Formats: sequence, C-alpha cells, structure tokens
Amino acid sequence: MEFVINQEMLKNAISTSTVGSLFYQEEDAFNGVNKIAKRVMHDLELVFGHAPNQTTEKTKLGKAPIIYGTVGHSPILQELEENNLIDLSGVKGKREVFLFQVIQQPFEGVECALVIAGSDKRGTIYGLFHLSEMLGVSPLVDWSDVKPKQKESFSLSGDFKYISKEPSVKYRGFFINDDWPAFGNWTMKRFGGHNAEMYDHVFQLLLRLKGNYLWPAMWSARFYDEGPGLANAELADEYGVVMGASHHEPCLRYGEEYKYLRGKDSKYGDAWNFISNREGITKFWEDGLKRGGKFENVITVGMRGEQDTSIMGKGATLADNIQLLREVLQTQNRLIEENVNPNLSEVPRMLALYKEVEPFFYGDENTPGLMNSEELEDVILMLCDDNHGNLRTLPTEEMRNHSGGYGMYYHFDYHGGPISYEWINSSYLPKVWEQMTMAYDFGIRDLWIVNVGDIATMEFPLSYFLDLAYDFEKWGSDAINKTDLYTKQWIEKQFGGVLSEDDKNKVDDLLKGYTKIAHNRRPEHMNSEVYHPVNYKESDCLLEEIDYLLNLAEELSKKVDPKNFSAYFTLVYYPAVGNLNLQKMWLLTGKNHYAAKLGKMEANKLAEEVRECFKRDRELVEEYHALDDGKWYGMGLSEHLGFVNWNEEENKYPVLMNVFPTGKPRLVVEIDGTDQFNEGPDWHNNKVILNNFLQPDVEEASFTISSKSDKTAEYSITSKNQWLTCSKTSGSLNGQEETTEEINVKIDRSAMNGETEGHIIVEMSVGTVIIVVNASQTDTRGLDDRTFVETNGYISIDAEHYFSNEEVKNKYGDVNRLEVLEGYGKTLSAVKAFPTTAHFTPGKDAPYLEYHFVVQEAGVYEVDLYMQPSNPVTQEGTIFCGIQANEGDISIVNVLPEGYRVDDDNWAIGVLDNIRRKVSSINCKQGLNTLRVYAVSPGFVLEKLVIYREGKKPAESYLGPAETYYVGK
Amino acid sequence: MEFVINQEMLKNAISTSTVGSLFYQEEDAFNGVNKIAKRVMHDLELVFGHAPNQTTEKTKLGKAPIIYGTVGHSPILQELEENNLIDLSGVKGKREVFLFQVIQQPFEGVECALVIAGSDKRGTIYGLFHLSEMLGVSPLVDWSDVKPKQKESFSLSGDFKYISKEPSVKYRGFFINDDWPAFGNWTMKRFGGHNAEMYDHVFQLLLRLKGNYLWPAMWSARFYDEGPGLANAELADEYGVVMGASHHEPCLRYGEEYKYLRGKDSKYGDAWNFISNREGITKFWEDGLKRGGKFENVITVGMRGEQDTSIMGKGATLADNIQLLREVLQTQNRLIEENVNPNLSEVPRMLALYKEVEPFFYGDENTPGLMNSEELEDVILMLCDDNHGNLRTLPTEEMRNHSGGYGMYYHFDYHGGPISYEWINSSYLPKVWEQMTMAYDFGIRDLWIVNVGDIATMEFPLSYFLDLAYDFEKWGSDAINKTDLYTKQWIEKQFGGVLSEDDKNKVDDLLKGYTKIAHNRRPEHMNSEVYHPVNYKESDCLLEEIDYLLNLAEELSKKVDPKNFSAYFTLVYYPAVGNLNLQKMWLLTGKNHYAAKLGKMEANKLAEEVRECFKRDRELVEEYHALDDGKWYGMGLSEHLGFVNWNEEENKYPVLMNVFPTGKPRLVVEIDGTDQFNEGPDWHNNKVILNNFLQPDVEEASFTISSKSDKTAEYSITSKNQWLTCSKTSGSLNGQEETTEEINVKIDRSAMNGETEGHIIVEMSVGTVIIVVNASQTDTRGLDDRTFVETNGYISIDAEHYFSNEEVKNKYGDVNRLEVLEGYGKTLSAVKAFPTTAHFTPGKDAPYLEYHFVVQEAGVYEVDLYMQPSNPVTQEGTIFCGIQANEGDISIVNVLPEGYRVDDDNWAIGVLDNIRRKVSSINCKQGLNTLRVYAVSPGFVLEKLVIYREGKKPAESYLGPAETYYVGK
Repeated sequence: MEFVINQEMLKNAISTSTVGSLFYQEEDAFNGVNKIAKRVMHDLELVFGHAPNQTTEKTKLGKAPIIYGTVGHSPILQELEENNLIDLSGVKGKREVFLFQVIQQPFEGVECALVIAGSDKRGTIYGLFHLSEMLGVSPLVDWSDVKPKQKESFSLSGDFKYISKEPSVKYRGFFINDDWPAFGNWTMKRFGGHNAEMYDHVFQLLLRLKGNYLWPAMWSARFYDEGPGLANAELADEYGVVMGASHHEPCLRYGEEYKYLRGKDSKYGDAWNFISNREGITKFWEDGLKRGGKFENVITVGMRGEQDTSIMGKGATLADNIQLLREVLQTQNRLIEENVNPNLSEVPRMLALYKEVEPFFYGDENTPGLMNSEELEDVILMLCDDNHGNLRTLPTEEMRNHSGGYGMYYHFDYHGGPISYEWINSSYLPKVWEQMTMAYDFGIRDLWIVNVGDIATMEFPLSYFLDLAYDFEKWGSDAINKTDLYTKQWIEKQFGGVLSEDDKNKVDDLLKGYTKIAHNRRPEHMNSEVYHPVNYKESDCLLEEIDYLLNLAEELSKKVDPKNFSAYFTLVYYPAVGNLNLQKMWLLTGKNHYAAKLGKMEANKLAEEVRECFKRDRELVEEYHALDDGKWYGMGLSEHLGFVNWNEEENKYPVLMNVFPTGKPRLVVEIDGTDQFNEGPDWHNNKVILNNFLQPDVEEASFTISSKSDKTAEYSITSKNQWLTCSKTSGSLNGQEETTEEINVKIDRSAMNGETEGHIIVEMSVGTVIIVVNASQTDTRGLDDRTFVETNGYISIDAEHYFSNEEVKNKYGDVNRLEVLEGYGKTLSAVKAFPTTAHFTPGKDAPYLEYHFVVQEAGVYEVDLYMQPSNPVTQEGTIFCGIQANEGDISIVNVLPEGYRVDDDNWAIGVLDNIRRKVSSINCKQGLNTLRVYAVSPGFVLEKLVIYREGKKPAESYLGPAETYYVGK
Repeated sequence: MEFVINQEMLKNAISTSTVGSLFYQEEDAFNGVNKIAKRVMHDLELVFGHAPNQTTEKTKLGKAPIIYGTVGHSPILQELEENNLIDLSGVKGKREVFLFQVIQQPFEGVECALVIAGSDKRGTIYGLFHLSEMLGVSPLVDWSDVKPKQKESFSLSGDFKYISKEPSVKYRGFFINDDWPAFGNWTMKRFGGHNAEMYDHVFQLLLRLKGNYLWPAMWSARFYDEGPGLANAELADEYGVVMGASHHEPCLRYGEEYKYLRGKDSKYGDAWNFISNREGITKFWEDGLKRGGKFENVITVGMRGEQDTSIMGKGATLADNIQLLREVLQTQNRLIEENVNPNLSEVPRMLALYKEVEPFFYGDENTPGLMNSEELEDVILMLCDDNHGNLRTLPTEEMRNHSGGYGMYYHFDYHGGPISYEWINSSYLPKVWEQMTMAYDFGIRDLWIVNVGDIATMEFPLSYFLDLAYDFEKWGSDAINKTDLYTKQWIEKQFGGVLSEDDKNKVDDLLKGYTKIAHNRRPEHMNSEVYHPVNYKESDCLLEEIDYLLNLAEELSKKVDPKNFSAYFTLVYYPAVGNLNLQKMWLLTGKNHYAAKLGKMEANKLAEEVRECFKRDRELVEEYHALDDGKWYGMGLSEHLGFVNWNEEENKYPVLMNVFPTGKPRLVVEIDGTDQFNEGPDWHNNKVILNNFLQPDVEEASFTISSKSDKTAEYSITSKNQWLTCSKTSGSLNGQEETTEEINVKIDRSAMNGETEGHIIVEMSVGTVIIVVNASQTDTRGLDDRTFVETNGYISIDAEHYFSNEEVKNKYGDVNRLEVLEGYGKTLSAVKAFPTTAHFTPGKDAPYLEYHFVVQEAGVYEVDLYMQPSNPVTQEGTIFCGIQANEGDISIVNVLPEGYRVDDDNWAIGVLDNIRRKVSSINCKQGLNTLRVYAVSPGFVLEKLVIYREGKKPAESYLGPAETYYVGK
C-alpha cells in the first residue's frame, strides 16, 4: 500500500496524544538527528496545518510511520535489515548517503513505513530534509521564512525506494565573513551575540542546502567562547556540521582569540610571532586543539601574520619564510597527533595557498617550496579565486595526485581590493558555473567554501554553489547552460505553490536581470562614469531594462500574499531593487553630468530623479530593517555607494549637477547614440552626421532636441529627401515641463533613386542645424549568411555569431571544442573551450571559431577581443589564444599584459570592469576576409570582437560597440 | 583786474535780456565753434545755476565777457592783436592749439575779457572746453551726465595767460564697433537710428576728451545715409571731427553700403571683387569720394575681401596679391586726386596693415612687398595690436622714415578669436600705458584709434587713451607709474566736489581693483576652471578682495547724492560690480565643484551663492537698463558668460554641483592652500602635511574642517607639541548652518627646543587625521637681504624683488635700464627694459636683474619665467632674454615657442591667461646661487620667477605660486 500523510491523520493523532505518532524516535539516535527530525516535523506542520507527533515506543506509532536512523546507531534499522525489509548495503560505508524507502508491514500495528536510513549522521539528516523537500518545503523555510504551500495529503508508492548519491565535493560550505556592520549588528540585536541560538539557524540553513562545512564569523567573534562557552561547537558537532576556519586561524583558534589572551603575563606570550614567541604560540595552538579537537573539524594549519600580513618581516628571504612555515607545520602536526589523533592521516587538515603563502608553496627556481613536502601529506591544499570570482592558479595534472586533495575558497562577498562588495548579492550563476566547474575539472573536489559575507541576500547563489558541490553530475561541467533551469527550479522551491506561472517567470526575469546587471558591474563598483551616457545608447538601454525590472518587482510586491511577502522581499525584491535602483541612480547621475555639461535643462530633471533613487536606496534598507518586526535589522547596514578605496572609507555619493536656463531660447540637437551635439551656431560648424542607415538592417534612427532655456523655443524640421521621414515637422519645448523631444527618422530605401546622402534641417529659435544622413547602401549580394559587413568604420561581433566552429578530436577520445555559454559575459553570451583543463595547439588540436567579414578598404586592422577577466591557471602569468586572418600565419597572442599578476593594476581594472581586452593587428583585403580565433590556454572565454581600421577606434563605452550588421541578421 | 564769473552776474544778465552777455559770438566764427560755445554756456549754467547769455553785439556784452575765435576766422581776434592786447604768434600755424588769456579793457564798456583763441577750429573748441574743465566740468558731463559741483564764482587773475600744446598724436580717436546687440539697440531705441542726434553726443564726448578722430559704427549702419542723409557727416565736419573708417571701408564708403547698392542692375556691379568687377568697384569708390571728399577725413585705402577675408582666393600667390593691392591703391589714389584734392600729399590717407594685408606689405625674401612703394607715399600706415591689447610688429628704425607716418589700431573691445570681450570695460591702464608708450617710442605718432565697442563703460580707459595721445609728454614714456595719478585725477574730474576724499579713495580702489582683476582675466574669458580652487588659496584671496570691492561699491551707491547717482552707476558701479560679480560667480563655481568632488556640504551652500551671483548678473543689467528712464537701455545686452567659441554662440553658464549628506557623521580635514584632504581613514593614509612653517616668516597657518553629512559631527584637536597652538581644541559641525570651520595654527619658534616636526591630531566622529607639521628652521645667518631661501621645494620671486638691478649707459647717452612697473601684470608688478625700442646684447649693453637664492641641494633646476604675453616687435617671431646662473654662460633664450605667431594656439593661451611662461634649466650649487636675467628684445616684461628642482614643478595655479621667503621679507 501507499505511504500517505494527510491532514486528517495528523489532526486525529493530536487528539490522541502520542498514540498514532508519525515519527519513531530512537534513544540510540544521534541527538542532532533527533533535533533535525523535530525541524522536519515542524515542516510537516507548515504543510499540513497540524503538527505530527513522535514516539519512542513502536506501539504508539500510527499505521504509516516514519522510521529514521543512522547505520550503526539504530537498532530498528538493524532489525529491519535482518528481517530483509530493507537493504543497507547501498548505504553502508558511504559518505553522507541515505536510503529513502517505503516498506510494507515492518512490524505489528504498522501497515507501511517510510524508512530514512543514513550512512552516517549527515546522511540521515539529509534524508530527513529530503522528506521536507518532497513535501515542497524550501531549504530556506527557516532562514528566509519561506512558507510552503499547504497540502491535504502526501503519498509515496508502496515500493518507493531512493538511495542518494555521495556528494561530489567532500567538504561543502560557506564562510560568514566581513560580518560588521551588517551580520554583527543583526546577531547582536536578534540573538544577543554570536551564539548557538543564532548558529542553530545557520547550521540548519547549511544542512538543508546539503552543505556540511562552515567557517564561522570571526571579525570580532570567538566561536568557541560565545555559544555561550562551547555551546556553538557542541551544537555544530551535534548537527554534524564540520567546522573549519579561515586561512589565518590555525589549530581551532578562532578570530580574535589571541588578542584576548595575549599579554605580558599570558602563558601565550604577547607576540603573534613564531620566532620570538614560539613557546607561547605553540601553547596557544595546543590548548586550542585540546579544547576543540574532540569535535568534527577541518583543522587549518599554517600561519600568517596579523591582519593578513606575511609572518616574517620584509627582510626575510623566500627560503627563510619557507623554512619557518615548515617548522610551523611540523609543530602543528605534532600537536594534532598529541591532542587530536595520533593517526594524522585521519585528521582533516587544510592549508590555504592564499596571498603570500602561495609563493612559499611553489618556491622558485632556486628554492624548493613546500609542494610535495611530507609536512603537507594528507593536508587539503586550499586554492582560491582572486576574491572577485575568478580562479587563480589551479593544480597541474601532476599536482592533482596530492594525497590530501584540493580545496577552493570562492567569494560571493569580499572585503578588500581593489573594491569590496559586501552589501547584497551581486554574483551571477553563469559565472559561478563557469569558474567552479573548471575548479572541479582541475581536481578541486575535497573542499569548496564560499565567502557569503552576511549570508543575507546570498541565499540564491549559495543554494546553487552547494547544489553544484553536492551533485556535480547534475549541474557541473556536463550541464552546460543549465543555470536557467536551476533558477527556475529554485524559484519553484521558494514560490512553487504561491505564485502563478506568469509571476514565477517574472521572478525569473528579476533574478536573472539583476544578477546579470550586477555581473556587469557590482553595486559598490558603480559610479557615474562607468557606462557612457550617450554612446551606443548604452545608458538608455540599460535604464530601460532596469525600469522594466523595477516595475516587475513592484508589481510582484503588490501581488504576493502577505504570508509570503517576507520571503519575496528578502530573497528577490530587496537584492533586486537594491541593485537596480543603485545602478539606475548612477546611470542617471552620468546622464545628469552629461546633460549639465551640455547645458540641457533636462539636467535639472535628471538631478531630481537621482534624488529619488538616492532616497529609495535609503528607504529600501529601512523597509528591510522594519520587516517582520526587525528580524533582519542590521543586515542592510553596509555602505554601498561610490567606493573609492577598497573599503567604504571616503566613499563618494553622487554629485548632482544643475544648470541655469540660458537668456535666449536655445535648443540643442543630439544624434542619439553618439556624442554629437549642435546648437546650429551661425559662425561655427552646424552639421551633425547620422550614420545609422549605413547598416542595411536599420530602418529607424533618432535625434533629440533639448531645451537650454526655460523659454518656449520653437523648432521646425524639414527633410530634404523624400526617402527620409521625421516623426515631427515642428514643435516647441518650454524648457520646464518639456525639456526634451526624441525625433524618429525613418528611411524608405525603395525611394532613394540612387541618392546616398540626405539632409534634415532643424530650424530653431536660435540656430539652424543640418543633419547629414549618410545612407549609401552596401552591396551584400553573393555574401553568405553570418558575414559581417563594415558600413560605419568598424565591425562589432558577438562571439557566438561565428561563421563556423571547428572541433578537433583529442587523444583521450574527447572532443576539443568551443561552446557557447548563453547569457554569460557583459553582452549576449560567451564562447569557452572544452575540456577546460586542456592546453591546445593551433593547427594541431586547437578548436577555433571562424568569422567572416567584409571591409571597404585593404589595410591593417585592429581586432579588439573582449574576454572574461580570467586569470592564468598556471604560474606563468599568460593566457594565449591564436589569431589568424585569411591565409596568414596563426599568431599566438598572450591576452594578458606583460608581467600580469593578480592584484596588479591590470587585474584590478579587469575585475571591476569584468572584461579583459586585447588588441591585435591583422591585415585585411578589400572585401571578404576570414578571421580565426583559436583556443590555446585554459581560461580563454571570448565575448565580443571589434574590428576597425588601425588607429580608428570606435567611440568608447562600457559594454563595447553594439553588434553591427551581418548578412541574415 | 581779475576775470570773474559769478552767480549774481549771470542772474542779473538774464533779467536784462542779452544786455550784459557773457559770450561774444561772431558771425564769422565756425558754426561748430559756436555750437560748442553753446555747450560750454550750458556747462556754466550747471556750475552757477544760471545760464549765461551771448550776443553778437559788443555793446551788449557785460563788463567781463568771454571772447572766442579762431585765427583767420575772427575779426575781433585780429582787432585785439592789432591793438596789441593779445599775441597770436604762439598759436598761428599750429595744430589744435589755443590761447587762453585774460586781457584788460579791450574795448569800450568791457573792463576785462577772457580771450580764447584757437589756431584752428579744433583749437578753439578745445579752448572753449578748457574753460568748462577749469570750472570743474567733466568731459563726461554730457555723455555720462556727470554733474559738476555748483560754484558761487570763478576767477582768473588779470594777467592769466595759457597757450596749449600741440597734441602729441595727430589723429586721436575711437571706433564704435561690435555695435550689436548693445550700441545698436541703444541708439535705435533712444535716437531712432545711427543718426546725427546720437552722433552729436558722441562728437561732443570725443572733443571734450581732446580727441579729433572717429570711426563710426558700421556693423549695420551707413554713416553717410542715416544722419538722415548727410547730416552725420555734416555735423562731424561742423564740429571739426575728422572721420575715418575701419580697415575694410575704403574711399569714404561705410559699412554695409555695398551690400545695399550692389545688384545685377547696379552701376556698382554685384561683386566685391577688384578683378571681376573692377569697373563697378571703382565707380563705387569714386561716388563715395565725391560724396564725402569735401569733409575732413582720413581716407582708408586698400581693400579686403568681404567679412574680413583676403581679397583674392586661396590659390593666389603672394605676388598676385601684392600686385592686385598695388592696382587698388593706384586706382584709389587717382580717384582721390580727381575727386578730393589733386594734391594727394594734402589728403590724409590710411592703409591698415592688418591681418592678411601685413604680409602684402612686408613681402617675403623673394617678393618685395608694398613697403616703400610710391603708392603708399604720404599714406599713414596703420599697425595694430593683436586685438587683445598687445602690439604686434612695430616700425623698425628704417621704416620710421616713412613719409606718411604710422598709426595704431588698439582694442578695448574685441569681437573675434580666441574669445571676444564686448560687454563692459576690462582694460587696465598700466597695460595701455605700457603698450601705447611703446607704440609712440617706435614712432607711431600720426594716428591712434581705439576700438571701444559700445563706448559705454569704456569712458575711463578711453579718457586715458586720448589724454595719453594728446599729451604724451605728461603721461607717456617718461611718466612711468603715473596711471595711479591719472586715475586719481580722473576721479576728481567726475566726482571732485561731490564725494569726500575718503569716498574718492574708495572709487580709486574700485576702479583699480576691478580693472586689475579683469586684466588678469577678462569677464568673457572666465570660467570655473581658471583659478585654482585651493592651491595657494588663490581663489579665496581673490574672493576676499572682490568682496571688499563689492562692499565698497554698495557703500558708495548708498552714499552718492541722487543727482550724481547716474554718473556713479555707469562709470563706476556697473562696470565694477559687473566684472566683480561675474568673477565671483565663476570663482564660487570652481569652489563649488571642488567642494562637491570632496563631498563637502559646503558645496550646497556655495551653489546657492553662485545662484545669487547669477541672479545679480541679470539684475545688474536690468538696473542699468532702467536707469534714467531707460537712457542706457540696450547697452547691457551683450552675452558675457562662459564663452566657448570666439563669439557668444554655445556659451556656457555655470554648472552647479550639489552633494548628498553622507549616512555617517563624516568630516574632512584640508590643509589650506593645498589640495590635501583627509577623512582620517583607518585603513588608508591618514596623514596630511602642513609645510607653511618651513618659511621663517610665517607665524600662522590654517587647516579647515568641513562637514560631509548633515548630522552633528564632533571633532577634537590636540597639538602634540607645546610650540604649536590651534585656535580651537574641539568643536562640532552640524553640516547645515555650520559646514566648515577654519582652524588657525600658530607657531612659537622660541619653544621648539630643536624639534623640527610637530603633530596635530584631529579626532573626529569618523576617522582620525594626523597633521604632520614640518618646521625645520632654515639657517639664514650671513645671508644678505633679498636672498630667497628654498624651504619647501621651490622658490617664487616677484620680479621686482631682485638683489640688484644693473644699468648700462648706451651710445646715445641714454641709460639701458630695467624699471619696475608698479601694479602691472598678474601679481605684484613687472619689470621692463628701457629704452623700449632697443635690442640689447648681454654682457655688452644689456641691463640685467640679479637674483640671489639658496637651495638645499646642488643639481639641475628649472627657472620658470612669468612674462607679459608680448608679441615680437619684428617679423622674426622671437623675444629673447638672457639667463645666467652663477658664473655660467649667459644663455640667450627665446621666450616664445618655436614658430610662434599671433593667432596660433600659444598666442591664444597667452592672451586669455595674460601670461607667457618659459622654463629654462640652470645648474645650482648647494647653498647660495645667483641668477641674472638680461633684457634682450623689446617687449620683454618680467613678472615672476619660479625656481624648482628639475621635474618637481610646484602645484599649478592661475597666478603661479605665491612669493616665497627672502631674507628681510
């Protein structure tokens, strides 16, 4: 028979005390497992409206109970297995695996039962939460107050059986970091400290998301002291949460502990120095291990100076440093053997290859580093991204044999250079996929940790990160372009039953929209000079998109049921509107400055709009803080406007510019999408050029007339050619309510009769502007589809619009290939080479993209490649690709500047602008040309190509020139 | 007996009709002279309150009449001479001279008489006006409504006799130019056109100022047609005003005449082209000469293309052009002989060597120019300044023999590149003196004409220009540093009896103050980026001076008697406040922008102050236009803000910047006079440096604390050294009313006890700033006075603070010398070489200045010379000076950029910034060094020297670094 839970059953159970209980609780079970069962019971109450009961007595169970247990800690599981009712062989000895099975008549009084059998504590816990998920309960039910849809009943077929997989990555978790002012204030106010009451929620969040590993907050907090006492550590252990610590917290000592314990009379001495105070530091570590060694940990080893500095002074040689670090590791290993486990190989340990530790690991030509040293045997080597989501060096094939395996420290939040990002989520799933799958491919499979800052607003990418780590087969390298699917599923989990399909699509638009925009520029990195105020209309286009998204957000916030409002607000509305409103504010500020420099009255209107956004930015945080009686108070406190240093210090708010109306009724004409403007000065150049119609697919263009005065100013517009029509022939602007008017120009190519240049005359109260319309028509006869045609001095190509994409079989039987990553990068998409770990040789095994394009004259052209700001995966500091024009030689180009290294100025520009550009010269023939771009090094991800005559760079912009015409566009 | 005029006498005369008349009017007298006598009689009425009478009958004269006449046109003068009562020998045959003498009992019934006897018409007129002047009547009585002080009586001793001098320059006058929108609107509204009613006032102004020559308005007006008819020309002739015409109006044809007369059927043809339409053009000129030849003129000869272009096309060679111009001159000379005077040498003619005509005059190596050609015999060659008050090429010694002599076309107003200046007076007397005396010294003595734009507001420099031309002996080359005296006398003429001495001194401050400020930067040339907002406090110092002057202007406007208000307003208040308020507006805008970029709340206050200035600028013109029932309406209409082109087109008003208050109570500390600012960021550099006390004479310095928020922000200030005292030890700013606080720091050098560095700690609500006070004391023992001592990386020297000034006797018995020109240039004064015409050879006959200075380390230093933007007086395009450091060689330095020419970009920068800078390298020893600067070429005028270590340029500013310490300062 089916296994059924329904409202009726639960309601009746209540009325009869524990008789007919749903959950069977064993005394032998792990405490933590039982606690989690209680959470799941609460989930059931949310779903069915009635709380289920539990019992320790089989006889009090209902007819269809839930039996859960952990192999080796559950008499009943043993009994069921002995009775051949279940088969635990698929679970036993596995890591974090559970059996989830419906069985019939296991024992008397029970008709059927749902058995949840974990291979270990976490296996059982994941199994219990699996039930919640099947009931439609979001993993964010507790953390984000996501209310599940109420159900009448739930059933599983009588033969239902599911065995979970072993998680792909061994340690999967997050790091609460950069916790002041937001997280710190939040937990102080809500829980009174960084205590177990708070961590109960954090652990639950972690486990429900199928993580198992945590680095606790450490800016001011001491995890082992503030539970109170050991309560935090004990709770973690109970729940099976493996505790780790950041790169500079060795030997189970957290955060500020040394600062509290050091002193002249302290047994730990008064110097964080392994040379001058070896004894004190050793004692400090020893006591740390004695205190926490009994819990499940990944123990950080190694040592750094205070506040992320090097441990030795500037005078020390590389060899000195390596020797000292070796001694540190020897000491720590000894202490662990003595105080935790004499069998060191059984103790999970981690060394972070972070910042200055990296050179100590690799050494140099003359000085062997710590790589392959016995001190690091079985130690997980933790690599890291560049703090901005781009991986750095990755294990070479040889290194991948390291006994301890590898970890990755990734960032969704960062407090550091060139500019921090800590306020709200600004991470973009396609990037996380692109980078973390590469990490996995490179053998980083033992530990994934992500800095989530305050956690709040990171729930979406955090879910993804942990799901990817848990089930790489499902979401990893082979699941190309599936972040959209993930997003839809995630939305379904949070709002499945409570929003219409249409509204869920809107949430989808919002999440993808705001994260893509944040991916192009993170909030803290925005300012008024990022996007060009007029070129290619990039600011206007983005503003239009932002307004569309903001409207969605407002529309949804009115629709969402009050009981779901909190989840909607914190998971969607607040991060989306926070991001979008801020971006809008800076874009409008850029437009305000531009308009003011032109003396346009519109500047004053724009200034008011910026004021609105600024106000909204403030209000939004207040709304967030007021939500649910202040539940989230504190989480919005991070500064987030106009950072000029790596941290918030001296950050700059928008400057508003206002103009005075001119004494005469002056107007100014601008050609939209360009920086041409003109007032029609009699004595100066009064011509502007409209080149849009040079592109054969463009049927409409526009220019804008704006007021410079607050007097009514008339204008008349005359087209001198019958094939050009303007949307207005006359009008006026009063410079007060009406400051600007966009005039559309339409072309009728059938009426041109061989003419190639037209004129539109704008006569104004002061001045007459002549708009010269260039419209000579390019002959595209005989050209293949996907041939780009130069019409206006340059060609801009979205990388995925190649003419052909050549794959090459490799010796491993795999295919070297370039794949389109949809939605990735700053504009349309990106193209990346697979396998991601391979180095290719052009002309041999390198896949390539071939582009076709026509130029009007022969000569030297520049090819400007727009790429992801990837870092090299090796120590060499190079990323190569191959460029080949026509039948010419393939030139192997290092797309990085000479001497590039992470943390240098070029790197900084890359991570802020989220683009890397490299210009190469090619020779072109008049007419049709081909350009091949070969993948060479890992990490080469191409987004856009811009080709132009040497020295004739197209106008600057943040996103690069909009794509130009190709045949068949 | 004394000659007396008194109220009683005039009152009685009235009551008895013409009996007892004061003025004796002869029928033989020139009409114009009699008309002027009427003006003078009106002046007497203003002075005595009663109008004098005139009579043509001796018998009706009073006992002490005034007899005026012109030699050869006055029977009574002849009679008096024959009776030996007067001696006309000092007058006869002279140019524009008058005898002014009291005689006893000339004939029956007359006890004594005042005789005014002119050598010619203008001599008599000047003599008559001389009486007005002696009575305290300003030459501006009519034009500017300057009311004289009323008198009871006036007397001259019985033997009073004065014979005036011949004017220094033959033709002295002004040009009404660039007459739209201001002058044009004014005369249309007030007089109904450019007619004789208007010119009556202009002629009177000219003659009262002792000028004799006028170029009439010609942008739209036709002088010969609009009198109506010939009335303008006839009136000029009557008054003895010699009419001229601008450089492109040959043969007595004015302005737009050809435009009116040309046409297909016109006898003058339809092309301003001496090749294709020689006949028509010749006829046009011929009729012009026929019409106007009978009046007194200086006839313009030569020809230019329409609208100041070249007469031949671009393809023509230099020789072609010269030949064509020669033919033009031949034709014109012939026409003049035929229609004006067969004796050409008696006809004053003028050729302007202006713009493209200049090369035609000089020719080149292969092509002789028109210089010395017979066509130009007796023709005045008119040279010109660069339109911005700097002379261009001047006659060489050889050229000075030219039979026709030379003229100079100078500008107090200009409509052209790089930027026009037309609104109100912006000319500075010391510059006019420096330039026009050089013109005179170079032999330019036949014609001085100055472009005065609309005349209005130019009365002050125009008076000076004409006085200088009239009496060069008094005000010219030998009257060095006498413009101050002139200004005092001018003020006395306008306000002698109506303002107290104290108030006249205030007017003096105002006139000198505003013209000096305008000399540093003309109003139309100002913008927010001219003066540095903080460096050397140059903006603040200037703002302080402007506020002082504006307060004077307001104070005086309240004090001035209503009947004198109009003169005060138009001659002083309006040009002064107009200039000053505009400068203030731009300075505040610069400060506003700077404050906004720092996020200072002060920015919002500054924006409001800019708004006030902008409003005042508008109101001021309105007040001017409303004055005296609209008498001046139109004269204020010129655009004058933020020119970006040479003309007003597309000019830019100030952009105002506003800031948002920061979320936290942030303050920022700035070191005054530098661009250092700091918020005390914990993680970044929170030190700023105060270097003022490195200069031994500086006892006080300051820093400023400003709000960035609108929250109350506390600060405390701690001096860590007893020798440093701050004016406050704590305080707060609320960011609303209180946005900024200047803290003074005093040093007590006696308490330093060998310390050289101090610290002031500013602790603020957010951040702590450390002010490092460098105060190491330079040892100046044993150094002579006037030795400059480097203390802070550079030395800045006002040119007049030389250590010694070496003169050299020259072969003409004169002394080659450098003289200080007080108040000249952008800062303190300037030094110029005399004689101004000489070229000197360093080491031989060149005078030099020697400077002494001490530097802290040996090495290469840069000497940055700040000079007047003089143009070369020769065609070579060079201005040399000599530089000699210590015992090194004298290096001869061309202070002009290679290939310099008037109208190029370097020139443009010079005339806008009113400075030329030239950097030379010198080698310095550690310790004491000498630097000699030798005069070489004419036009070398040195203002400032800045010496600094190679590559260590001091901070930029508009005026250059403020002068640094010297021994004895």
